[in-house]
Amino acid sequence: MRSTTPHEAVPATTPAASLVFTTVLSHGPLTRAEIARRTRLSPAAVTKAVRPLMEVGYLVEDVDEGARPALGRPANLVRVDAGRALFIGIKVTGDEIIAVLADLCCHIRVARHVRLTDREPAAVLPALTALVRELLLEADGFGVRVRGLGLAVSGDVDRTDGVVRYSPFLEWRDIPLAEIVGTATGLPVTVDNDVRALTVAEQWFGAGVGLSDFALVTVGAGIGCGLVVHGRVVSGAHGVAGEIGHLSIDPLGPPCHCGNNGCVEAIAADPAILRGVREATGRPVTTAAEALELAHGGDPGVREVYARAGEAIGRAIGSVVNVLGPERVIISGEGLAAYDLFAEGIRDAFAASAFGTAAQCDVMTRPLPFEEWARGAAATAIQSFIGSDTR
Amino acid sequence: MRSTTPHEAVPATTPAASLVFTTVLSHGPLTRAEIARRTRLSPAAVTKAVRPLMEVGYLVEDVDEGARPALGRPANLVRVDAGRALFIGIKVTGDEIIAVLADLCCHIRVARHVRLTDREPAAVLPALTALVRELLLEADGFGVRVRGLGLAVSGDVDRTDGVVRYSPFLEWRDIPLAEIVGTATGLPVTVDNDVRALTVAEQWFGAGVGLSDFALVTVGAGIGCGLVVHGRVVSGAHGVAGEIGHLSIDPLGPPCHCGNNGCVEAIAADPAILRGVREATGRPVTTAAEALELAHGGDPGVREVYARAGEAIGRAIGSVVNVLGPERVIISGEGLAAYDLFAEGIRDAFAASAFGTAAQCDVMTRPLPFEEWARGAAATAIQSFIGSDTR
Repeated sequence: MRSTTPHEAVPATTPAASLVFTTVLSHGPLTRAEIARRTRLSPAAVTKAVRPLMEVGYLVEDVDEGARPALGRPANLVRVDAGRALFIGIKVTGDEIIAVLADLCCHIRVARHVRLTDREPAAVLPALTALVRELLLEADGFGVRVRGLGLAVSGDVDRTDGVVRYSPFLEWRDIPLAEIVGTATGLPVTVDNDVRALTVAEQWFGAGVGLSDFALVTVGAGIGCGLVVHGRVVSGAHGVAGEIGHLSIDPLGPPCHCGNNGCVEAIAADPAILRGVREATGRPVTTAAEALELAHGGDPGVREVYARAGEAIGRAIGSVVNVLGPERVIISGEGLAAYDLFAEGIRDAFAASAFGTAAQCDVMTRPLPFEEWARGAAATAIQSFIGSDTR
Repeated sequence: MRSTTPHEAVPATTPAASLVFTTVLSHGPLTRAEIARRTRLSPAAVTKAVRPLMEVGYLVEDVDEGARPALGRPANLVRVDAGRALFIGIKVTGDEIIAVLADLCCHIRVARHVRLTDREPAAVLPALTALVRELLLEADGFGVRVRGLGLAVSGDVDRTDGVVRYSPFLEWRDIPLAEIVGTATGLPVTVDNDVRALTVAEQWFGAGVGLSDFALVTVGAGIGCGLVVHGRVVSGAHGVAGEIGHLSIDPLGPPCHCGNNGCVEAIAADPAILRGVREATGRPVTTAAEALELAHGGDPGVREVYARAGEAIGRAIGSVVNVLGPERVIISGEGLAAYDLFAEGIRDAFAASAFGTAAQCDVMTRPLPFEEWARGAAATAIQSFIGSDTR
């Protein structure tokens, strides 16, 4: 991390401070009394946590005119000063790098896309670093410092060590990404799995706000799942969690790249759908868009491939719901483009597999373009900045 | 709850106090500094939480002679005074009621078993109440008050409302158990799902001590699973969680009582095994013991039934591990009697289905007779007593 003058230092040095900060970030503006109620901290602890965050300007206080009592002191509202700091979030897919400059409330101020023709780290990392430099210049234009960089990559990512252990789509193994990019840019870098990063953004700012337990299921090139249990994102003791793409739902199902048979991903991810469409039509279909066009054109064999995929996704959601009983399941990912073809299969398979009252879980869809995934990466950088990742 | 004199009141009225209490309970004796480190509370907060618990005698302090420094004050060790309070824990199975009298450290002081010939609430509840009265007399003999009663029942149990929503084995629906038994006995009653109760006991005193994330898988009359994520037992937003018995792993598998096909329970629970053994042998086998005897006698068809069951259990464990990535999976339940017949299937199916580093999860077996399940019920009563269930 760059050297900082004392009043510029990372503000939230205690668990209480980062808890207060994230509560105000997700639910603010809030009165101190409401912060205490939501965090279950004492009013004295809230006051103690809020003070240094105000001194450095990350939190500010407004008089709540609407709530001004006839007599006595008005209840002031505490909120995050969005413009007080900036963060860069980057999502790396197999085809492009998406980068956003986001403020302290994780609003996107600037977004940039760069096509990738080569997935080798030697090609991706210079492009990524150049993009960061470009956004640092944009930040200078705002006159606000960039406080952290979040990088989101699919696969097995060790956030603590900042290492991409294995990303099948990028074909990266054991890349010490935080160290490489931190050295090149001078920024504190947070590296996380892309679905987990998006889950953080949904928890703080999206369809997960206020929920202590929810699942985010992403469909597309792979089938992923981010989980929030007891108010915190699940990372797994060994770095693996939410791998619903590798739930085996059919012992006689197609082989999966993981070595097992009948995995959800081997039935419902884009490559599996493309293979199914090629087999059904005999045509050399290579992109999700082509497959989708054939299905929307009414080809019954192609529609059947999507229906089977929908059923597999629905059974995977049923499994998550039976194991964890979340309040809500959010379905997203680029595969939502085919949701009309998946919907019936998902609904029927979920209904059949959810056990008892687990079926009451709210299953919803939510389109989140890749810029939102980059925003998720920015959210992980904010998380690191305010120390809430260590709670 | 019975009226109490002020100094006899429930001791832990703050989240910090119950956190301190459970930490000392699981890991004690501990110095105050070590309590602060483990709970991440400030030393001042620990001192504030410990004081009232000492005043009422639930915590006591010993000088740690081994750690006495050459100079300065010795570091005193704080521990729970096991004998200061008693609790009753009861597990109701389809065949019997198992009741234990346990102390504040959840050591079993007395255990009682009563056979059931009728599962109707009208028959079970008087037998249960009589058993509680018997144990209250035993407690009088110790000269210590019983502070709470925990009841553990299989199925969908609403702990908050104290209601058994649906217990398939007992064929109970919407029984307000806490109210009925509380009125009959005058004790504060905690009702919970039996596997969750056992999970609490494992978390505090068993193979889950010190782990923030683990799963307890029980095999036998049903297939259950208790989950601890981020240090807390998972209950599910709608009361359902850990239902790995109803993960569907084979779309062409046998029908399950839940209405779905190919559920783990429809392949690997006792009734499914008995059905398989009857089909394989043509004999009218009706008990797990008979089936086990045939398998141990070497009947290949019977052994194949157990092997398939083991494979289903292994795949279910693989699913839990892929979704949550726990540090450890503990396999228990009365079905462990057949573990030698399950073991290879479990091991192979788990290895095939666990994704990447998730396979590093420690999978172990642990025999826990039904008295331990009753002890789990006592643990839930201790949990309610010290307020840690509301954390």
